[in-house]
Amino acid sequence: MVVGIIGAAGYAGSELVRLLARHPRVRSLSLGSVSLAGHIEDVYPNFLGMVSRPLHKPEEVVAASDVVFAALPHGVGEAYAKACLEKGISFIDLSADFRFDDDEETYKAWYGTGFIVPALRKCSVYGLPELNRDRIKTLAAAGSVIIGNPGCYPTAASLAVFPALATGIAAPERTIIVDAASGITGGGRDPQKSFHFPECADSMSPYKVGAHRHTPEISRNVKNMAGLFGRDAPEVIFTPHLAPMNRGILSTSYIPLKKDFHAVSYAAPCSAPRPPSKEVETSMLEIREMYAAFYKDEPFVRVLPAGIQPATGRVRQSNVCDIAVNIDQSGTTLIVVSAIDNMVKGAAGQAVQNMNIVMGFDETEGLDTIPALF
Amino acid sequence: MVVGIIGAAGYAGSELVRLLARHPRVRSLSLGSVSLAGHIEDVYPNFLGMVSRPLHKPEEVVAASDVVFAALPHGVGEAYAKACLEKGISFIDLSADFRFDDDEETYKAWYGTGFIVPALRKCSVYGLPELNRDRIKTLAAAGSVIIGNPGCYPTAASLAVFPALATGIAAPERTIIVDAASGITGGGRDPQKSFHFPECADSMSPYKVGAHRHTPEISRNVKNMAGLFGRDAPEVIFTPHLAPMNRGILSTSYIPLKKDFHAVSYAAPCSAPRPPSKEVETSMLEIREMYAAFYKDEPFVRVLPAGIQPATGRVRQSNVCDIAVNIDQSGTTLIVVSAIDNMVKGAAGQAVQNMNIVMGFDETEGLDTIPALF
Amino acid sequence: MVVGIIGAAGYAGSELVRLLARHPRVRSLSLGSVSLAGHIEDVYPNFLGMVSRPLHKPEEVVAASDVVFAALPHGVGEAYAKACLEKGISFIDLSADFRFDDDEETYKAWYGTGFIVPALRKCSVYGLPELNRDRIKTLAAAGSVIIGNPGCYPTAASLAVFPALATGIAAPERTIIVDAASGITGGGRDPQKSFHFPECADSMSPYKVGAHRHTPEISRNVKNMAGLFGRDAPEVIFTPHLAPMNRGILSTSYIPLKKDFHAVSYAAPCSAPRPPSKEVETSMLEIREMYAAFYKDEPFVRVLPAGIQPATGRVRQSNVCDIAVNIDQSGTTLIVVSAIDNMVKGAAGQAVQNMNIVMGFDETEGLDTIPALF
Amino acid sequence: MVVGIIGAAGYAGSELVRLLARHPRVRSLSLGSVSLAGHIEDVYPNFLGMVSRPLHKPEEVVAASDVVFAALPHGVGEAYAKACLEKGISFIDLSADFRFDDDEETYKAWYGTGFIVPALRKCSVYGLPELNRDRIKTLAAAGSVIIGNPGCYPTAASLAVFPALATGIAAPERTIIVDAASGITGGGRDPQKSFHFPECADSMSPYKVGAHRHTPEISRNVKNMAGLFGRDAPEVIFTPHLAPMNRGILSTSYIPLKKDFHAVSYAAPCSAPRPPSKEVETSMLEIREMYAAFYKDEPFVRVLPAGIQPATGRVRQSNVCDIAVNIDQSGTTLIVVSAIDNMVKGAAGQAVQNMNIVMGFDETEGLDTIPALF
Repeated sequence: MVVGIIGAAGYAGSELVRLLARHPRVRSLSLGSVSLAGHIEDVYPNFLGMVSRPLHKPEEVVAASDVVFAALPHGVGEAYAKACLEKGISFIDLSADFRFDDDEETYKAWYGTGFIVPALRKCSVYGLPELNRDRIKTLAAAGSVIIGNPGCYPTAASLAVFPALATGIAAPERTIIVDAASGITGGGRDPQKSFHFPECADSMSPYKVGAHRHTPEISRNVKNMAGLFGRDAPEVIFTPHLAPMNRGILSTSYIPLKKDFHAVSYAAPCSAPRPPSKEVETSMLEIREMYAAFYKDEPFVRVLPAGIQPATGRVRQSNVCDIAVNIDQSGTTLIVVSAIDNMVKGAAGQAVQNMNIVMGFDETEGLDTIPALF
Repeated sequence: MVVGIIGAAGYAGSELVRLLARHPRVRSLSLGSVSLAGHIEDVYPNFLGMVSRPLHKPEEVVAASDVVFAALPHGVGEAYAKACLEKGISFIDLSADFRFDDDEETYKAWYGTGFIVPALRKCSVYGLPELNRDRIKTLAAAGSVIIGNPGCYPTAASLAVFPALATGIAAPERTIIVDAASGITGGGRDPQKSFHFPECADSMSPYKVGAHRHTPEISRNVKNMAGLFGRDAPEVIFTPHLAPMNRGILSTSYIPLKKDFHAVSYAAPCSAPRPPSKEVETSMLEIREMYAAFYKDEPFVRVLPAGIQPATGRVRQSNVCDIAVNIDQSGTTLIVVSAIDNMVKGAAGQAVQNMNIVMGFDETEGLDTIPALF
Repeated sequence: MVVGIIGAAGYAGSELVRLLARHPRVRSLSLGSVSLAGHIEDVYPNFLGMVSRPLHKPEEVVAASDVVFAALPHGVGEAYAKACLEKGISFIDLSADFRFDDDEETYKAWYGTGFIVPALRKCSVYGLPELNRDRIKTLAAAGSVIIGNPGCYPTAASLAVFPALATGIAAPERTIIVDAASGITGGGRDPQKSFHFPECADSMSPYKVGAHRHTPEISRNVKNMAGLFGRDAPEVIFTPHLAPMNRGILSTSYIPLKKDFHAVSYAAPCSAPRPPSKEVETSMLEIREMYAAFYKDEPFVRVLPAGIQPATGRVRQSNVCDIAVNIDQSGTTLIVVSAIDNMVKGAAGQAVQNMNIVMGFDETEGLDTIPALF
Repeated sequence: MVVGIIGAAGYAGSELVRLLARHPRVRSLSLGSVSLAGHIEDVYPNFLGMVSRPLHKPEEVVAASDVVFAALPHGVGEAYAKACLEKGISFIDLSADFRFDDDEETYKAWYGTGFIVPALRKCSVYGLPELNRDRIKTLAAAGSVIIGNPGCYPTAASLAVFPALATGIAAPERTIIVDAASGITGGGRDPQKSFHFPECADSMSPYKVGAHRHTPEISRNVKNMAGLFGRDAPEVIFTPHLAPMNRGILSTSYIPLKKDFHAVSYAAPCSAPRPPSKEVETSMLEIREMYAAFYKDEPFVRVLPAGIQPATGRVRQSNVCDIAVNIDQSGTTLIVVSAIDNMVKGAAGQAVQNMNIVMGFDETEGLDTIPALF
């Protein structure tokens, strides 16, 4: 199988190259760039002697490939998606263009322009396997398909919240708060002041507070998962931060519990918080079991044993999402922490996972990397 | 004036040495350690040729000094506090022992043991100047005083929440969520697995979720500030994280607004979030003005101009707390981000600020460091 | 094939686990620890759901395995080496115990104690394949073998110097200087002050200057390679530094050239240095070609194209050694920079490479990881 | 006194602002930028509420000031230097324009263009106080002066080598090798690929090997110091590296000793290196004493006690240069390690030190910061 990657010279693109060059089902790679020529190993000398491939024009990549990935800015890739469908091959898109199905209004509100070829959404599906695996399979079974590969924050946040929605323990009338931090690779390959080493090393800061484009994507996932179980969905507030590290997203989600699931923490109302009581601990363990049950067949989600918290360093370079279930000291709010590698499960790895599903391969092929501790 | 520092060999103690050695009102330092002997510059070679002082026994420090700081583990310093009061000098304590006034129950619930000399609380005050400056002054005017110097997280979080409580815009029946990250110096000088470079570098993780000792301290500050204005106080949930940096706390507080203060964001209920509307922006600017007015006379709090977010790197080695006022996209929840240097405003700097108040000096003496960008 | 790893709970041991758990020839792992019990995934939660193995006693590991790795402190593993030989299986030792062949005097001078079972050296070989591949193969062909797996610095430094010795361009009467920096994982898993995050983050320092145990190992390699070509060998000075990063060794070697190979840089003696002349550049390119030719069949050594310098970040988690050939501005001294991942080519990866050679597998099996850029 | 800073918006410029805004002799600052308008606190929000100053045109700064600093690219500042001299005030230049006195050939060879106003060199002096203090004073006594403030690497390297030249223990016919690493702030404020966080974090690499512009500056200093004592000077090879940290230069200098000063290490030639003998240790201690004596009156140089190595983290934000004297195991080569903060002693701090000398102030005024450990 020849796999095409358009936008191979960006960070997400180069991560696709790294993963797909070792994928057991991939015979060769056809790499493309909208703006650069030369070879991929000129741009990324880490590939020297391991991956040596010229950068073609996107059209040539489409022509040469059996499936095409695109890691391009928003609004650039639709033409190639169309060309792929016409050729009868699938297109896996890492931009936001196909993440909103036919909700062009929301897409336009956050990304500024409307869809270029709206009809493509008839063949597209949001590629979060833990939410949409069946839809992806159904669509792929019917022919070629466009995958809207999820954003990095939405992946980490949605996986943390899904079981609480599915099991109905989340209070739908209360807002879910997602507070997350990303490594600097999330900002891409283009040198900018915000990602200049002295400006961000040894420092932490938030950005786009109350106004990040991943908010509607998370909200949409929340509504879709709640909808699958016939439930109302809570609103979502999301705040991203920049942390002084290369890879990883750590996401902390605050999910108010329905009254029925409150741990009875104190005998009487109390003026000051107390450490978690035995009831709170029990409640946490029960909900942890719900989470473990929800994800028991998922190959890439690990619900951690009680007492172990996720660390981005512990999922580095793997497609794993680590999840810890916690409760606040009063037993009324779930605090679910999730960690992913933003470049793998948050981008290129999840895209390969989607390819595996679309092509009918085992979902873990080419993605069985054991995360290194450092 | 001779200033004593017991526990000078710990990180907070060494930061006190650094600050007080250059304080214009300090003639000399008397340094003490419970367990170490030798000189401070043997422990911290950065002091070589600049601060050369032997480490004495704590009793000797009390005897030699006009005011005493203690940076000791919880439960160790009360005897020295008592000795100071008996000698008629003030005692500034960086442990949690005097942060709860006479609420021994809460202290005991979180720190395991009760007060050793409960009566000392008659002369003690929680040393967050932005909350208690008048009480500190009044108590100090009456004689020697014990300062319970605030925790690092409670300082950052409380300063972010205070104006919303004072102005009555926070909805008292809704929980405030404080999500914060600390640099690794917060873990102290003792080598441990969690703070071993390869275990925490280039990684991020939460700890003590739903069970951190700073939760009751933040909650108490929230209640006290609301109480000053005759208001009910919201509950608090607090989650700390470890970020791969040396210094700094970045704290993001989610404060639900009373209905009256909701920005009318959307003409009609909408199924998906929209970017902040003009009403939301206006609401944010108004509340930012409230914050700026609240802190207009505070020497160490900077309410940042709209559009600038705090970064821990931008308050490095200074006693400043930077605050940015944001609102979520729907205009119903305040998202206030604050940044401090955990070792300065979060520990030693605030202790010196308290000393300045107690001794009647200008509050900024010895604390006018301009933060370096890197 | 069952592979045993004694000392699996240390950093080098855990890296062996990570690599061997995905090695195509390995059926299962038998893990051992001298001091710890429990499971490996309790010690390293990054293994959860991927590698689940109990920690056995070392003797049990020997009994269960077809080949045994040991990542133990110096002086601890000889008994297990002996047991392996008696059982007729090979033993790959990551300590220094078998790095000096029969030169017990030198070993003792630097490591304090002598050999425990000196006779084992009859079956041992220093496992730097680029130096000793044939000896390893010959010995292994004759039965079970003990591999003294090289130190991290000696690997990086020796590979940088070998071609200059083999081709005879290095001046034997002049000292080679090796100045190198290591990531903090080189210090192992045990929390210590030197590796406590706040003490080493954002800082750089040397250690054991003029007195590091890897000096005699580098010197020995230099003499052995020169000896292979019948040449005299230069002396070696080696200085290690600690750099604030997780993995990697960057080694800069200064190799004085024989007069015959000096570039004629300036027409006349000149009072001040000048930028490299065309002659110097040409000389550099010629020597670069010698290096490329020397390593042309080595699967893990990349002689970089002119203009590209090694970066530890570019060999991360791979078994590759990147080498750049440079000359000083006057054309008299070769400046060869090499980069490896200290945990892979500098420890566990090279050990697996040795296993591949000993067992007759393709040398790259299980070691074809493409280095990630970040 | 009004102090002018042209190029205030660059990193070195902003560091000058930080230091001079707290200098006891400075009444006010006049800031200038060649390309930017607005206020300095718009560019560097860390200055908010502490330093609020508009950015003027350079000519206006010259007109308003009693002394002028320039932190500009090479070749840009000569016109302002000339204007200052004409006005009768001193000019402290952080570029390379005045670092080579009248040796225009060497300047041109490395910086590409010649001097613009060659005659200015009659009033200029290379501002390394430890080399040229008397010349600076003499020139300043005669009127206004131009200071060519040293480069960061040359400062660290020269201070490490000077005592060996002055005491005549360095072998003049052998090359001195300087191997050094710099924090990323050394690359300036302009975002570039090399300084983009993901490209340099957690990684180390060399750059401009054998071809860095600081080579002739170090070489010049070596010759000048040797010349002061009537000695021949060794050649210099210099290799810079980029280390993943914000501030700091760590420089390791290898200085071959004259035969007379070789420690007699081994009774007989020995095939393998041995740990340092007692003779080597004694030799090291004697030379350490020479170093301490040489610098005994220098306010900013600390020759560290035996057993303590410099760390860049231990001179952070101070004007100190820490120096450790070591010898290689054979006792023939001095290994002197020095650490400075590249932005302070390596740039802005040394410039202020020069201002203090020129203006007749105490040399340490405004520069007495105690370095923080982290």
